[in-house]
Amino acid sequence: MNSKHIVVVGGGFGGLQAVHDLAGAGVRITLIDQRNHHLFQPLLYQAATTILPISEIAWPLRRLLRQRKDVTTLLARVSGIDPETRRVFLERGPAVSYDMLVLATGARHSYFGHDDWEPYAPGLKTLEDATNIRGRVLSAFEAAESTPDEAHRNALMTFAVIGAGPTGVELVGVIAELAQRVLPSEFRNIDTRKARVLLVEAGEKVLPAFPEDLSGYARDALERLGVEVLTGQPVTSCDHAGITLGGQRIPSCTIIWAAGVQASDASRWLDVEADRAGRVVVAPDLTVREYPDVFVIGDTAAVLGMDGKPVPGIAPAAKQMGRYIAKVIRSRLAGKPAPKPFRYRHQGSLATVGRSAAVVDFGKFRLKGALAYWFWGFAHIYFLIGTRSRAIVAWSWLWSYLTGQNSARLITTPDVTRHASRDHGLE
Amino acid sequence: MNSKHIVVVGGGFGGLQAVHDLAGAGVRITLIDQRNHHLFQPLLYQAATTILPISEIAWPLRRLLRQRKDVTTLLARVSGIDPETRRVFLERGPAVSYDMLVLATGARHSYFGHDDWEPYAPGLKTLEDATNIRGRVLSAFEAAESTPDEAHRNALMTFAVIGAGPTGVELVGVIAELAQRVLPSEFRNIDTRKARVLLVEAGEKVLPAFPEDLSGYARDALERLGVEVLTGQPVTSCDHAGITLGGQRIPSCTIIWAAGVQASDASRWLDVEADRAGRVVVAPDLTVREYPDVFVIGDTAAVLGMDGKPVPGIAPAAKQMGRYIAKVIRSRLAGKPAPKPFRYRHQGSLATVGRSAAVVDFGKFRLKGALAYWFWGFAHIYFLIGTRSRAIVAWSWLWSYLTGQNSARLITTPDVTRHASRDHGLE
Repeated sequence: MNSKHIVVVGGGFGGLQAVHDLAGAGVRITLIDQRNHHLFQPLLYQAATTILPISEIAWPLRRLLRQRKDVTTLLARVSGIDPETRRVFLERGPAVSYDMLVLATGARHSYFGHDDWEPYAPGLKTLEDATNIRGRVLSAFEAAESTPDEAHRNALMTFAVIGAGPTGVELVGVIAELAQRVLPSEFRNIDTRKARVLLVEAGEKVLPAFPEDLSGYARDALERLGVEVLTGQPVTSCDHAGITLGGQRIPSCTIIWAAGVQASDASRWLDVEADRAGRVVVAPDLTVREYPDVFVIGDTAAVLGMDGKPVPGIAPAAKQMGRYIAKVIRSRLAGKPAPKPFRYRHQGSLATVGRSAAVVDFGKFRLKGALAYWFWGFAHIYFLIGTRSRAIVAWSWLWSYLTGQNSARLITTPDVTRHASRDHGLE
Repeated sequence: MNSKHIVVVGGGFGGLQAVHDLAGAGVRITLIDQRNHHLFQPLLYQAATTILPISEIAWPLRRLLRQRKDVTTLLARVSGIDPETRRVFLERGPAVSYDMLVLATGARHSYFGHDDWEPYAPGLKTLEDATNIRGRVLSAFEAAESTPDEAHRNALMTFAVIGAGPTGVELVGVIAELAQRVLPSEFRNIDTRKARVLLVEAGEKVLPAFPEDLSGYARDALERLGVEVLTGQPVTSCDHAGITLGGQRIPSCTIIWAAGVQASDASRWLDVEADRAGRVVVAPDLTVREYPDVFVIGDTAAVLGMDGKPVPGIAPAAKQMGRYIAKVIRSRLAGKPAPKPFRYRHQGSLATVGRSAAVVDFGKFRLKGALAYWFWGFAHIYFLIGTRSRAIVAWSWLWSYLTGQNSARLITTPDVTRHASRDHGLE
């Protein structure tokens, strides 16, 4: 039991990759996460919009690691770190000592100083967020069906997604298709095709990280789906009854936040330098300058790419960092010289627009439309974990494609209807 | 628009069957339910015990009825009924007038005067109940993994199911298998095979409605799975830390209630006679004696079978009643004489014991063991709604059978761990 003890906090793409690549390294590993599952975030928007059930995009960490006898998994919340004595404190239970620590704790939504908007404009980071957003969207249509007042009904049938990055574009595309294609035959008092679906963006472009032509294509494709794209105007107020935008009030009962992220508390735990988004500023080997035994990776680390731009907060970047630090740790254990500094290789950007189009940017290789959607679909099926999930996700997509029906349409957040109705004066 | 307006409250097996059988009857139908989905309750225990994801055992009512242009579906909670003026009042929105009313509002748990036990011993009636119970069972193992105190750990690893009817037997069988077969390889600090799984029953038998030999078989089969079956002793106290039984205290952090049901509020809404379980006493044509335009069916109706015993609260009984009253309504609309009084035909009783045995009682035809399990499985797949669900449920079962792994293992009730830990003094 003299083997080194590596503590990894966070079972997302980065943390799990590090654990994976440390197999057989002769260390003891403890993986700590506040949830019992690894979440496949790239498909989270589909769970939030009734295409996939949440059970197919997340897997218990314990189960993924059951054959790794060197790994102990703990479901626990970190409350602090003492890097001097090398201890991780948990909200409950004894502190955990480490020889080396990997912080891969991700990011959450940022409201840019408007944290009071959160109850009215929930973001999408967890399975519970997805269940919540799905419940709100479906409940708004339900409430509209039995609301005699026209103004209220219109507010119930107005859906505003704030932020036109990939998540915002993907959410708004599916909501528009729900209203246009999936739901019309099911309602008797309302015409769901008259729902207003808004994509609101402070900047001038949708998908700002994409090349001009793909960005323009995405905008046109969304407008063809019936989405109103409102760019160049920041939201100036947001409450239970709607948003304000360029001085104009838009009554809406369903607002979704996809505009910004904030890193986890890692920099606060360590009391070290962070950038504006709260990400820890790391050394070229992804360690914290003050504490060479502490690594920070994924959305919690501020890393610059070779082009001088920040490395994006996407799964492939987190996985590359996880793989890299596993190498650094192995070198140290073997007493070998450290590997070269971390270099991020951007593999490409993808985003879907509704259920039949996508944009794909691999630098010289670009793709848009139906073919890009198929490419996106195969790529994501390929990266899903486990044969069972692959089969069921593929089946869900095929079913949805053939029947035009989405399968994950349950409202299970107990107070969603009550919330929506109360907040919007329907009592 | 002079057609009669039939209002059906409750989209369970009874209400949905009535709506189905009234197709083409020339009536307008409004289906009111407080949830947006029909739930396939016979498989609910599998969702509560990680075998099936909840998305595969429930379907949006709107979607099931989308081709029925004569049916309007409302997601709403009934707050009262005025049978004199024929109106149904909703918690929100205008009252709904009817010409004929069908109350198919089901049942919920009954704690026999101990309603204060509910927070500690949740019952299983809804999808949220299933998610909650699954979260509690899994969180108890998680907390045990990081609990140094032995007494606490033992309480966390003790699971008590109260009530040995089919639901209790089915729950306890799967929990035992989880502990014995699914989870052992995933934990490092605890041996999940040492978990105590208790089935507690005030009466002398498990599955009291079954013949002696099948009841005895079920008991033996449960004990072979490692379940401790404690019959003949009622629970005398139940709190956050355990139960008391025959003067003996059993510390347990996870208690599940499967001991009794209470009919919905229908009798209170109508202010009419109810039996001890709150079921409305109905006339031979399933109408309320005082109000011949009000039908009560399913678990909310007190109906005697030909053998003089109450008709059981199971899906086939509710469906038979739904079918029967559709006939009565059609006769009335056509001005024909009423059909003969309702007669319940018992088709048989089934219950599973773990994931490889079951008992089946069709009177002269009885079956037990693995063959009965396959019979049970095919019967339930057959009665599931929709090709997609059938395929996925069959696939989930096959996967579980081949790999020994259950697929629905997510903890998504946000405060479950906090709850379990706080209640059991782990702070």
